[in-house]
Amino acid sequence: MIQPAFADSLHPITWPEGYRAAASFTFDVDAESCTIAHDPSSTRRMSLMSHQSYGPKIAVPRLLQILDRQAIKATFFIPGFTAESYPDVVRRIADAGHEIAHHGYLHEPMQGIDAATEASYLDRGLEALANAAGIRPVGYRAPWWELNWQSPALLADRGFLYDSSLLDGDAPYRMAVAEGDSRDIVEIPVDWALDDWEQYGFYPGVTGSGVIESPAKALEMWTLEAQAHHSQGSCFVLTNHPFISGRPSRAVALEQLMERVKDLDGMWVTTLAEIAQHTKDTAQEIHTHARIDVPLFPGAGASFRPAQVKIPTLR
Amino acid sequence: MIQPAFADSLHPITWPEGYRAAASFTFDVDAESCTIAHDPSSTRRMSLMSHQSYGPKIAVPRLLQILDRQAIKATFFIPGFTAESYPDVVRRIADAGHEIAHHGYLHEPMQGIDAATEASYLDRGLEALANAAGIRPVGYRAPWWELNWQSPALLADRGFLYDSSLLDGDAPYRMAVAEGDSRDIVEIPVDWALDDWEQYGFYPGVTGSGVIESPAKALEMWTLEAQAHHSQGSCFVLTNHPFISGRPSRAVALEQLMERVKDLDGMWVTTLAEIAQHTKDTAQEIHTHARIDVPLFPGAGASFRPAQVKIPTLR
Amino acid sequence: MIQPAFADSLHPITWPEGYRAAASFTFDVDAESCTIAHDPSSTRRMSLMSHQSYGPKIAVPRLLQILDRQAIKATFFIPGFTAESYPDVVRRIADAGHEIAHHGYLHEPMQGIDAATEASYLDRGLEALANAAGIRPVGYRAPWWELNWQSPALLADRGFLYDSSLLDGDAPYRMAVAEGDSRDIVEIPVDWALDDWEQYGFYPGVTGSGVIESPAKALEMWTLEAQAHHSQGSCFVLTNHPFISGRPSRAVALEQLMERVKDLDGMWVTTLAEIAQHTKDTAQEIHTHARIDVPLFPGAGASFRPAQVKIPTLR
Amino acid sequence: MIQPAFADSLHPITWPEGYRAAASFTFDVDAESCTIAHDPSSTRRMSLMSHQSYGPKIAVPRLLQILDRQAIKATFFIPGFTAESYPDVVRRIADAGHEIAHHGYLHEPMQGIDAATEASYLDRGLEALANAAGIRPVGYRAPWWELNWQSPALLADRGFLYDSSLLDGDAPYRMAVAEGDSRDIVEIPVDWALDDWEQYGFYPGVTGSGVIESPAKALEMWTLEAQAHHSQGSCFVLTNHPFISGRPSRAVALEQLMERVKDLDGMWVTTLAEIAQHTKDTAQEIHTHARIDVPLFPGAGASFRPAQVKIPTLR
Repeated sequence: MIQPAFADSLHPITWPEGYRAAASFTFDVDAESCTIAHDPSSTRRMSLMSHQSYGPKIAVPRLLQILDRQAIKATFFIPGFTAESYPDVVRRIADAGHEIAHHGYLHEPMQGIDAATEASYLDRGLEALANAAGIRPVGYRAPWWELNWQSPALLADRGFLYDSSLLDGDAPYRMAVAEGDSRDIVEIPVDWALDDWEQYGFYPGVTGSGVIESPAKALEMWTLEAQAHHSQGSCFVLTNHPFISGRPSRAVALEQLMERVKDLDGMWVTTLAEIAQHTKDTAQEIHTHARIDVPLFPGAGASFRPAQVKIPTLR
Repeated sequence: MIQPAFADSLHPITWPEGYRAAASFTFDVDAESCTIAHDPSSTRRMSLMSHQSYGPKIAVPRLLQILDRQAIKATFFIPGFTAESYPDVVRRIADAGHEIAHHGYLHEPMQGIDAATEASYLDRGLEALANAAGIRPVGYRAPWWELNWQSPALLADRGFLYDSSLLDGDAPYRMAVAEGDSRDIVEIPVDWALDDWEQYGFYPGVTGSGVIESPAKALEMWTLEAQAHHSQGSCFVLTNHPFISGRPSRAVALEQLMERVKDLDGMWVTTLAEIAQHTKDTAQEIHTHARIDVPLFPGAGASFRPAQVKIPTLR
Repeated sequence: MIQPAFADSLHPITWPEGYRAAASFTFDVDAESCTIAHDPSSTRRMSLMSHQSYGPKIAVPRLLQILDRQAIKATFFIPGFTAESYPDVVRRIADAGHEIAHHGYLHEPMQGIDAATEASYLDRGLEALANAAGIRPVGYRAPWWELNWQSPALLADRGFLYDSSLLDGDAPYRMAVAEGDSRDIVEIPVDWALDDWEQYGFYPGVTGSGVIESPAKALEMWTLEAQAHHSQGSCFVLTNHPFISGRPSRAVALEQLMERVKDLDGMWVTTLAEIAQHTKDTAQEIHTHARIDVPLFPGAGASFRPAQVKIPTLR
Repeated sequence: MIQPAFADSLHPITWPEGYRAAASFTFDVDAESCTIAHDPSSTRRMSLMSHQSYGPKIAVPRLLQILDRQAIKATFFIPGFTAESYPDVVRRIADAGHEIAHHGYLHEPMQGIDAATEASYLDRGLEALANAAGIRPVGYRAPWWELNWQSPALLADRGFLYDSSLLDGDAPYRMAVAEGDSRDIVEIPVDWALDDWEQYGFYPGVTGSGVIESPAKALEMWTLEAQAHHSQGSCFVLTNHPFISGRPSRAVALEQLMERVKDLDGMWVTTLAEIAQHTKDTAQEIHTHARIDVPLFPGAGASFRPAQVKIPTLR
């Protein structure tokens, strides 16, 4: 038999009394925004738009029903454009007691943009959530999970409690917003294997591998990952998109997964906001990301030296 | 145990007496047309042409036998070019009591074409079906499922009862042909997960992911989706291409799926025309698609506001 | 229960006394040739060349052992370049009683080449097989399964008995070498689902989907297809590449497949040459491929009419 | 029942007393290096960098725990840049008794570089491993497994015992460093099916097929391959990347695989250095790779002749 206890040594965490691990079900309600940001002319494609609208129109009501039946509070990341298009949907999510968090305005491409541009996306997204549903979110997830080095400080400037876009851990941690900046926010890491796009996503001329997996396969691999997080005492964060995972048999599989996760003894199933607040309140250490500064290859001189990272010994 | 009843709240439907859900097996008999439309020089490739011809030559006779054995009436979407190439095949399909529907003339690329061009494809397809088999179809499916905003009105102009190309629901509904146009047609939504191309399709230099799935996997995932539609009382629409799914072991799996779907208590297995007529006759509400009008990103001004969509509360 | 008898109606065949279906295991010994033809500079990549050489160096001896143990005679399609590089291997295959067939000289790209160029490839391949092992093949398979409309006549000119590159049937048939040419050769159709490349093939910067399947999955789907061919009385033709399918656990799975195929009652497991000769001797009908002649889209005039194909009614 | 004994006839090997086959678990600790080498501007992507840093920060400590629990000594291929970024991690690996081997400096692209450039990468990698942890490696694995024809001699010049980058066998062998050079090094072949990238790897805009497999599937196919190597007496070499395979449920599956491999009777589970030394000490034959010299296609003259390779008869 395999001894299952191997934890995330770099981000040690103690869970609240009675819990040994945590899990959160999160939904990115991109709807039309991500395709429009990718290619504005996609608004001309009626079928594509209809495919994206499935999320707020059909899937979110269904998912709310499932979450209610399972008594789970989830976190919904909602681009401002979605909030303006479907204000009813946002209000209904909030009314059901779920967390609403920030996901850009139009699910904008984030690579290589400057701080002023990024700030304008953040502010416009905040404005949209406020107008649509009177909500001031404490959490942020970068579109495409593409955080920039400047992003944490911009989030701290706006009073955000946490981000959930990095991929460097199994548990939440406090991170300095920049080297030399004493402020910190909480980071709750994600993973591509816990995203539904790679399992199910496909639209011709937009993206996806072309392979569409069976819900039975996604259920199997997500169950294995939830069990492993449970064993090692870390934090399982699933990212689903309603327009993908709210379809009939996928919703059934997702509800089965929720039942399995709840059945794991001592699993704290809650929102990212709750997990972030607990982390902020209890974690002692603040993690600083060493930014690698590499001159463009191959002209590498003396400065071609990465920061040295200290890794503590695993308990 | 999971309570299975979560329906498509936006498109409520009551099925005919004795039925609680519906299912339709549809076949797009593209044959050579889709590859020629994609690349006209593909006619020079004898092997590719032979691969496409497998559909009408070998697969359709086999599928007709299966449908006869299973006592199922199916819907065949047939491009005009296929009807002209294989008039015998079209007549035999019709003679067996199946529905013949419109699928363009040469499975033309539909993105960005103007209304006059689209109208000419529609008319030429109608002419081909009339000439080949004396058929006037009531149903339409856009090539590549690529409906344009102008398409519904063009279909209404020609007296079509329904379209089956959008992806925004689990059940059929009546849709206004345009904002401000009082006419409506029925829409019967589809889904990429219920298409055989992503599971089986591959041809070098043409398309496909390169992965070819086992019929056992496709059977599993389509069964799960049929069960979920059955549970929630919505409409399962499978799209198969004879040149793909008519191959030996895939045809066996398809027949197994048919048996499973028929075994679902109260499942109405019929043509899309029957489902559309029932929807036209019984649905009260007419759904209007709010067309998003977004100025090309990032020049977004005051007009950068999407239509606000109302979503009814799920029963 | 499903009644399994649905045959390839267009290519009816009666198998030899005692048999009800046929199966052939074929191997394309491409080795380095296919990568060099694709990109001549690939000879500079030592690792890539080593990967290709695995076929003749390691896999073929292993496969010969398996075939001997299973008492199966197989068909090996060998490019001339492979025969010149590994004459020992070719002789050993021949000495074991297997069929050696033609597969181009350097596994050349075949699309769009003229008849003279194609003839030179054929002649050079014949010369190489003659020189390396004194063999005059009766069978041909086009590189990449890419047959040209001119190919059948070129094959008849050189006395070939059969080709195995088209994808339009489940059973062998006699085909006219061209419209208006009274000569015919036998065609034994293939299928991408019965090729190992899509299941296992991957090399960075060369090709493959990036997904590598388990031998358990390939074994499952090939078994299903063999069973379906057996049920309907047609011809199962598997195409394996030694450098792909000769690796340890894939070879084990292939041997398991051979055992299963042999266990199917009345399955004639033999070479393509035997199947072709039987077809030539017994098939009455000669199939003429109607060449589609489409003016380049969208300039389609009166000539934009496909040949009308007659499909016999399925028994 | 299938008789399982078919060995790698070209590279016969006798294992140490008491063993009938060998297995090695190897880890390529690429961390940030491979993405930076692929695209230097990727250092600007905080999320991408965080994803790569998961390897040394979270995964390596976990993998060291697993290896300790399983009492397995593994081989870690570490680019110099990783060693400089995470010297602690390298020292901890070495302190636990595992082998540290060479994997370039920045996981540089290797195709088409000249010998001087390649030498500079080798030397810079050696310097980094020496500085970070006082290590002089005896083993080398080319970045992307892309060995050049010039590489073996460069390795011999620097006293390397072995390389593990070619894909032409199931067992280690001695290879001449070049035609006409009497020196030899040991080659321990690898295979793409035994790499974790194709099973699990995906990062938008970087690479991967987009499909992410379940650990259950990878465990199945790697178990089958280990069993097949065991049966035939050859050498199973698994290549895992900590940032990919160190994630929770994949690490669990990897530990299950280790248990299964250890349970195979007479399986020698050890480092590549041990296997290489044994090969150097006991193998009689030295394998010379015949370099194919093909003039650029299609200008092929008399020189267009490959070297003729002799393949011994399988015992």
